[in-house]
Amino acid sequence: MSRIFDVAEGNATSCPRKNASLDVKIQIDVPVAKHNNNRSCWVVLYGKVYDVTDFISSHPGGANVILKWAGKDATEEFDPVHPSGTLEDNLRPEALLGSIDTATVVKSEPRSDSSVQIEMDPPMQSLLNMDDFEQLATKKLSKKAWAYYYSAADDKISKSLNTQAFRSILLRPRVFIDCTECNLETQLLGNQVSMPIYVSPAAQARLGHSSGEAGIAEACRSLGALQIISNSASMTPEQIVANASPEQTFGWQLYIQDDRAKSERMVARVNKLDAIKFIILTLDSTVMGKREDDQRFGNVIDEITEVSYSKGSKESIKKKAFAGMDPSITWTETLAWLQTRTHLPIVLKGIQTHEDAYIASLHRSQVKGIILSNHGGRSLDTAPPAVHTLFEMRKYCPEVFDKLEVWVDGGVRRGTDVVKALCLGARGVGIGRPPLWGLAAGGVEGVKRTLRILADETKTCMRLLGVQRVDQLGMHHINTRVLEQQVYDGPSGLGQCRAQFPSKL
Amino acid sequence: MSRIFDVAEGNATSCPRKNASLDVKIQIDVPVAKHNNNRSCWVVLYGKVYDVTDFISSHPGGANVILKWAGKDATEEFDPVHPSGTLEDNLRPEALLGSIDTATVVKSEPRSDSSVQIEMDPPMQSLLNMDDFEQLATKKLSKKAWAYYYSAADDKISKSLNTQAFRSILLRPRVFIDCTECNLETQLLGNQVSMPIYVSPAAQARLGHSSGEAGIAEACRSLGALQIISNSASMTPEQIVANASPEQTFGWQLYIQDDRAKSERMVARVNKLDAIKFIILTLDSTVMGKREDDQRFGNVIDEITEVSYSKGSKESIKKKAFAGMDPSITWTETLAWLQTRTHLPIVLKGIQTHEDAYIASLHRSQVKGIILSNHGGRSLDTAPPAVHTLFEMRKYCPEVFDKLEVWVDGGVRRGTDVVKALCLGARGVGIGRPPLWGLAAGGVEGVKRTLRILADETKTCMRLLGVQRVDQLGMHHINTRVLEQQVYDGPSGLGQCRAQFPSKL
Amino acid sequence: MSRIFDVAEGNATSCPRKNASLDVKIQIDVPVAKHNNNRSCWVVLYGKVYDVTDFISSHPGGANVILKWAGKDATEEFDPVHPSGTLEDNLRPEALLGSIDTATVVKSEPRSDSSVQIEMDPPMQSLLNMDDFEQLATKKLSKKAWAYYYSAADDKISKSLNTQAFRSILLRPRVFIDCTECNLETQLLGNQVSMPIYVSPAAQARLGHSSGEAGIAEACRSLGALQIISNSASMTPEQIVANASPEQTFGWQLYIQDDRAKSERMVARVNKLDAIKFIILTLDSTVMGKREDDQRFGNVIDEITEVSYSKGSKESIKKKAFAGMDPSITWTETLAWLQTRTHLPIVLKGIQTHEDAYIASLHRSQVKGIILSNHGGRSLDTAPPAVHTLFEMRKYCPEVFDKLEVWVDGGVRRGTDVVKALCLGARGVGIGRPPLWGLAAGGVEGVKRTLRILADETKTCMRLLGVQRVDQLGMHHINTRVLEQQVYDGPSGLGQCRAQFPSKL
Amino acid sequence: MSRIFDVAEGNATSCPRKNASLDVKIQIDVPVAKHNNNRSCWVVLYGKVYDVTDFISSHPGGANVILKWAGKDATEEFDPVHPSGTLEDNLRPEALLGSIDTATVVKSEPRSDSSVQIEMDPPMQSLLNMDDFEQLATKKLSKKAWAYYYSAADDKISKSLNTQAFRSILLRPRVFIDCTECNLETQLLGNQVSMPIYVSPAAQARLGHSSGEAGIAEACRSLGALQIISNSASMTPEQIVANASPEQTFGWQLYIQDDRAKSERMVARVNKLDAIKFIILTLDSTVMGKREDDQRFGNVIDEITEVSYSKGSKESIKKKAFAGMDPSITWTETLAWLQTRTHLPIVLKGIQTHEDAYIASLHRSQVKGIILSNHGGRSLDTAPPAVHTLFEMRKYCPEVFDKLEVWVDGGVRRGTDVVKALCLGARGVGIGRPPLWGLAAGGVEGVKRTLRILADETKTCMRLLGVQRVDQLGMHHINTRVLEQQVYDGPSGLGQCRAQFPSKL
Repeated sequence: MSRIFDVAEGNATSCPRKNASLDVKIQIDVPVAKHNNNRSCWVVLYGKVYDVTDFISSHPGGANVILKWAGKDATEEFDPVHPSGTLEDNLRPEALLGSIDTATVVKSEPRSDSSVQIEMDPPMQSLLNMDDFEQLATKKLSKKAWAYYYSAADDKISKSLNTQAFRSILLRPRVFIDCTECNLETQLLGNQVSMPIYVSPAAQARLGHSSGEAGIAEACRSLGALQIISNSASMTPEQIVANASPEQTFGWQLYIQDDRAKSERMVARVNKLDAIKFIILTLDSTVMGKREDDQRFGNVIDEITEVSYSKGSKESIKKKAFAGMDPSITWTETLAWLQTRTHLPIVLKGIQTHEDAYIASLHRSQVKGIILSNHGGRSLDTAPPAVHTLFEMRKYCPEVFDKLEVWVDGGVRRGTDVVKALCLGARGVGIGRPPLWGLAAGGVEGVKRTLRILADETKTCMRLLGVQRVDQLGMHHINTRVLEQQVYDGPSGLGQCRAQFPSKL
Repeated sequence: MSRIFDVAEGNATSCPRKNASLDVKIQIDVPVAKHNNNRSCWVVLYGKVYDVTDFISSHPGGANVILKWAGKDATEEFDPVHPSGTLEDNLRPEALLGSIDTATVVKSEPRSDSSVQIEMDPPMQSLLNMDDFEQLATKKLSKKAWAYYYSAADDKISKSLNTQAFRSILLRPRVFIDCTECNLETQLLGNQVSMPIYVSPAAQARLGHSSGEAGIAEACRSLGALQIISNSASMTPEQIVANASPEQTFGWQLYIQDDRAKSERMVARVNKLDAIKFIILTLDSTVMGKREDDQRFGNVIDEITEVSYSKGSKESIKKKAFAGMDPSITWTETLAWLQTRTHLPIVLKGIQTHEDAYIASLHRSQVKGIILSNHGGRSLDTAPPAVHTLFEMRKYCPEVFDKLEVWVDGGVRRGTDVVKALCLGARGVGIGRPPLWGLAAGGVEGVKRTLRILADETKTCMRLLGVQRVDQLGMHHINTRVLEQQVYDGPSGLGQCRAQFPSKL
Repeated sequence: MSRIFDVAEGNATSCPRKNASLDVKIQIDVPVAKHNNNRSCWVVLYGKVYDVTDFISSHPGGANVILKWAGKDATEEFDPVHPSGTLEDNLRPEALLGSIDTATVVKSEPRSDSSVQIEMDPPMQSLLNMDDFEQLATKKLSKKAWAYYYSAADDKISKSLNTQAFRSILLRPRVFIDCTECNLETQLLGNQVSMPIYVSPAAQARLGHSSGEAGIAEACRSLGALQIISNSASMTPEQIVANASPEQTFGWQLYIQDDRAKSERMVARVNKLDAIKFIILTLDSTVMGKREDDQRFGNVIDEITEVSYSKGSKESIKKKAFAGMDPSITWTETLAWLQTRTHLPIVLKGIQTHEDAYIASLHRSQVKGIILSNHGGRSLDTAPPAVHTLFEMRKYCPEVFDKLEVWVDGGVRRGTDVVKALCLGARGVGIGRPPLWGLAAGGVEGVKRTLRILADETKTCMRLLGVQRVDQLGMHHINTRVLEQQVYDGPSGLGQCRAQFPSKL
Repeated sequence: MSRIFDVAEGNATSCPRKNASLDVKIQIDVPVAKHNNNRSCWVVLYGKVYDVTDFISSHPGGANVILKWAGKDATEEFDPVHPSGTLEDNLRPEALLGSIDTATVVKSEPRSDSSVQIEMDPPMQSLLNMDDFEQLATKKLSKKAWAYYYSAADDKISKSLNTQAFRSILLRPRVFIDCTECNLETQLLGNQVSMPIYVSPAAQARLGHSSGEAGIAEACRSLGALQIISNSASMTPEQIVANASPEQTFGWQLYIQDDRAKSERMVARVNKLDAIKFIILTLDSTVMGKREDDQRFGNVIDEITEVSYSKGSKESIKKKAFAGMDPSITWTETLAWLQTRTHLPIVLKGIQTHEDAYIASLHRSQVKGIILSNHGGRSLDTAPPAVHTLFEMRKYCPEVFDKLEVWVDGGVRRGTDVVKALCLGARGVGIGRPPLWGLAAGGVEGVKRTLRILADETKTCMRLLGVQRVDQLGMHHINTRVLEQQVYDGPSGLGQCRAQFPSKL
């Protein structure tokens, strides 16, 4: 193995490759550091040099994120946010140019930019609620990682409204009812779970802790909770479910890629994993929300097009969409396509109106559940909290609750929030950020404790309501008067609403 | 009396005991400090050593509170929160192992951890309202005691809503009405009292001042106000009523114990005390609310179960309930049982829905009154303020006001709050924290002043409304428009509501 | 004139008196300083000694205010808050004991306790709105005087609600209407005034500036505005109207005294003053509100009764009423009495419900107007803002607007507030604190500027609404949607409301 | 050219003039500095001396603004806020007295009074939203300029309500709809534009950046956006449109002057400019709002009249109106007059009620559009946000949307705000302050970026709603429940409302 590059800006060593001609092409006199633009873009990862010029435009995180590292060693930046196999899945074999002595290239800074060193972590026992976890995690995480977890669209109105909406609902405790027995067990899509609380598909868990999504899986196994694996997880699905217990349940989240073949390969892999019981198809993020905290800390490069908006000029619209995501998905085409690729039940995530909930129920041969979600407020600011949509459904199409399972997520921070969602008709209640704060604050034990606290709070709440089982909770246990005054009341009632459903589904 | 223990970790001296074999068993070579776990747990109290191993699991405050002091002298911690006789009532005689030289054992720190020394107390005259009392008490109390008084469930939403709900009601003063005469006298369950304001059953008064609940009784005697004695008072009922005046009225609060025989013994004692005119049965705390301030200052040990929630595992549910409290109480069984034990009138505390108020009215052969209360926000967060429940009742079952006396508590801080509750139909208005702040701020005189201020504010308010007697107050004296928009409006009206009443009462 | 007192604690010199025996009684050996209690209470005023023992209990400001100065020279405290003639009107001639060398007695501290010396007052021109005036006045006034002006009942909820209620009303500007001409002239009870804004009867103007109520009168003369003289003015009505212009209009406020003869004497004096065109009878303060700022700065001595509230004890209720005020006034007795004493039109101040507005209209042979007022929030906290009562009247008894003039006060701080009140049906709009802040900030010029600013703001608002005259303003110029949701909606509509009117008026 | 003035206070040099006698009159012994009052007022501008005595009273900015500079060199103050030609248009030729050595006169301070020197501007790329631009501009602008841009009437309630009203509307995202294509193109009054966002007619752009309104025009050309030129622009219309692209569209704003001939001359000039496609007639500011920030920083001299308001005195009302503006304009007279002067379509700006929107629709032979606006809150405080008026129109006169184009402005800070306005029926959405902040922060590039950010946010929002074209947006995409509870609901419904329309239009 001869040295090929040997200049100040970085030296690459050829590795045994089939395509000898490529080796020749990059020989000696072309240092890595000069391939730093979108006409020729090389990056160093794990001591190897890759030519990613052709890939830039289809990078799900956007071209600029790569260009920032063009000609440099991006390993520390790349590693915690990409599952293993990412390079193999996305690059043609020829893209691997050779090895390199990484001491000779510019590296990304270590991720932790936290200047405040935490002297000693407080004991997990001293963290009493989700806010405690967020506070500790905020201290421990790098600012970039914090920004990724914390950020939400625009002014974060939906993010805070998610929690406020729960708090505006009052409970109606009934007394003199035997609550000696009280348990949280329930079924989600036919799978027995120990609690109605599940882990939502939040990405990039390894930003918080090296155990990553597998660490969350370990906590869920211990508590008997369902976990949904993010399409953008920092580990492969195979890695995440590797240590699952026989009765453990997972879902897998699908963002449909522009390059539909990639999604087909992923679905095929997931079909083979017994622990994964259903597929969550996320619909609320066909373009990426504007998350300014992420932008300020460099997680998302500002890609406001510089092309003119002036009349006549046709900007290349496709490029403006959420890089890599397919914005053209529809009820008819896409569901049919997915059904030919998997026999797993399909759950639609990101439903935010009763109209779409209703339409989903018309597709119930394929769709077995829906998740009411505004993506934790990360997608479209001032989109409605899930409890609004629950309430809309009770008002305009209550029959949907009998046809599909309805789950919700967004803003859940207390057991009382869980109970309120269940009273409104939800069957499963997802938590997104709390397990990530838990992971960052205390690794696997941190995640376990977040789940345990929420489960205990839920149980305490049920007992104080005089309720022993999840299925006993109902609208009569809550006072939604304040919420009702904020929920959509139709432009003019259901008749017209229905008229707005696409005439052809 | 020979020395039995004599080692660095603490020495116990035998006391005259019937069971000589026990004396032998613990002789010499077993220092107290080694009995510091749940297999063998000794504690030193008032210079004596007790083996409380068998008692741990039934301690109303939770096992961990005891285990924290296992092998140590817990006297300073124990004393202000337990009435005399507690040891005798709860431990078998054999539990007393002997005496000990307390200089040889680890002691609890003095309760007052306030680092700021109050230079000189301001004169009581300078405290003008309940907030002034809370502020001074906060300075004077230890943090643990402060936490016990201040704390409420979860995010303290109900606690603050209790006060806000009163403030959202406006008054409607009528003019040109002779208000020369104005008095607050009324009857509570047939007992003549000088004001409709009474002292709610708040526990642990000795944390605030050594005169404890008896000090509150002295203040109530001086003002002619009713006092309800807490089941968890830091003095015995006998001590508290010892100096009662002939016309003074008390109620006694009952939490029904897991060990029903204990409750029966207590009721029997109360039956013998003439000053106690009725029994308040508290229903809203069959499991303990999550009071995080208390947890942070060690009043409540975090007892989140470490057992798995995973499928199949049956955790020991009973242990999770409010230690010592019986979560299995019901309308039919429990009321019947209590009626066989006492002829005192029964008042149900913790009613939070019109449904339960209505059910209570169906039991009016036994139940003579109800107290609308969310336990000062300490039990279930986002439970409704009492004025919500008052309003619900006026809307759905106004006839209940004619069948039972309806009292309220929670959030009362001004005479105007008292008047508003009376206008909505309450007959008695309880104050929980204010007398405790008063006691902590100024002992008996402090309690007197809190009562006097509230009574004077109430009278001023009545006069400015043009009202001379409590029974003249009515709905036309208040504007509840803002409140109404927050009160439960039924899932679909009373018809359905009634259908949700248990079919068998 | 011989020296009578000559001891360290103060020396009094006899003055020529009819009752020589008195001179003798107090001779030589009885120093003033020893008469410092309620059995014998002497005070020094303007170099003279008065025995006020008999007067203490009928002092309108309360006994304790006097007792604080018993045996001392109270001149500096007394002077700015009492009109001349107060001593003569209230004390019997014998009360004057003699003269004294004031250097020998303990004096009250100078009133100004402001430690921050204002380096140089900003020019009046730089004060742009009422808040600017309040801020400057707050710096310049003594804390006691500030407390008297600023304070309001309890938690000052009504005080802040007064202003917020105006702000919650939106305006509806109409365009393309000629607003070249625009004037504020109107008539109040038949008296031509240059603006609908008038000065409310606020007491103690000399606390703010030595020109006192006469200074306000000078400003009103200059601007053509109506002024109502407070019953508790710090100058006599004769002094205040002394420099009135021929067309200037005053009202005089009457608090009916316990000692009805005093009120009769005052009314007789007022009847003789041509500048005074009507009498305002204040109804909302038959007992004094709880103004804690005043209490904290010693303006009002805390008089919470120390007598027992216990059963049987009959406290002396009369003493508890607003010292000196008569709490027994009624529609029938009192109006009839007043009508025999004056031919001036009567205006009732402090109406706070539509019921009382309606009743007033039934007495329109005597009553020519009503002022909707909660006394600037100083009387009963959570009493309704005047705009609530205006709205109630429009809803339940709009015909009253045709029978009586309806004026309002409380919380007016902007010309837009004035316009909104006029749109709702008010004919006159009173300002209480602003002229006092103006007087304190800049003397007569300060008052002029507050009136000018409000008038200019009012005119600008009218023009931008497309309105030229005050009588063109109406409900269609405002959006009261938010306010409406807070206004009293009846326990069950007007039918029942009317039923609550006293059956005998 | 001989020196005429040569004294310490300033020397003027005569310039060739027709009227020699004037030259003589001011010769030598009359220094400029002495003409510093309203009887003789000279100012120095661009090295020349002008006698503006006759002009003072008709200065649109008020007399005092000129008098402040009487006898001094006002060039630096004058230049950035007056278009070239202002002197020629407003002064008679004789007013020019001669030249002067400006070193000898008192000058205005340099405009930038910002003591904090910005070390280096942050890159435009780092500014992510309108708030970022406002913050940077606030740092860079002089306080006077900042005050001019920032200020609004009274307490700025309308200003903040403008933004809050948008935020209170929730969006209703629909899923599974192909949003690959999405464009913002639309037509405004028949003119094709690349986005529905346009630049509102905000004055004084050169205060922010030397490129002024022409710089904004350059940015609009680049982005394809419509710009409305302010009547008070700091450049002439000819200068602003000089570099327009052939397809670029402008509107021109008209404030009708007291001196109608001036307006006629301006309209005649505008008629000749092909780039200007319509005239915006502003109706909401016939008198100037009270902008206290402007007053505090000297932009507006406090002109509260010192004349008496007392009865009989007739103050000169005309002078009190917005100096120079004609307050007498009406639907019938003024529209007819304008129509004889131009064939351009007329748009009425400042409509704030549905009544006026309806009346405008009756004039649709002349009026082609209306702009719902409260002048950015600068005119009348507590005037309604444009979305209120949109909602009123949908409720009371929805047919108007079919008869006229309805545009809105005020408080738009996010793409979601733009979308919400479009959903409610607006066709164009104006931004006033943001381009000025952009210009101040970064010149032409700053304006481009503000437009680009808003356009991108708008597009992201549309895609996440499942919408491809502007004309697909509708009421079913928004939840206006909270807003609806604040919108005018009529004094008693539409019947009466219509009755309030002027009977003769």
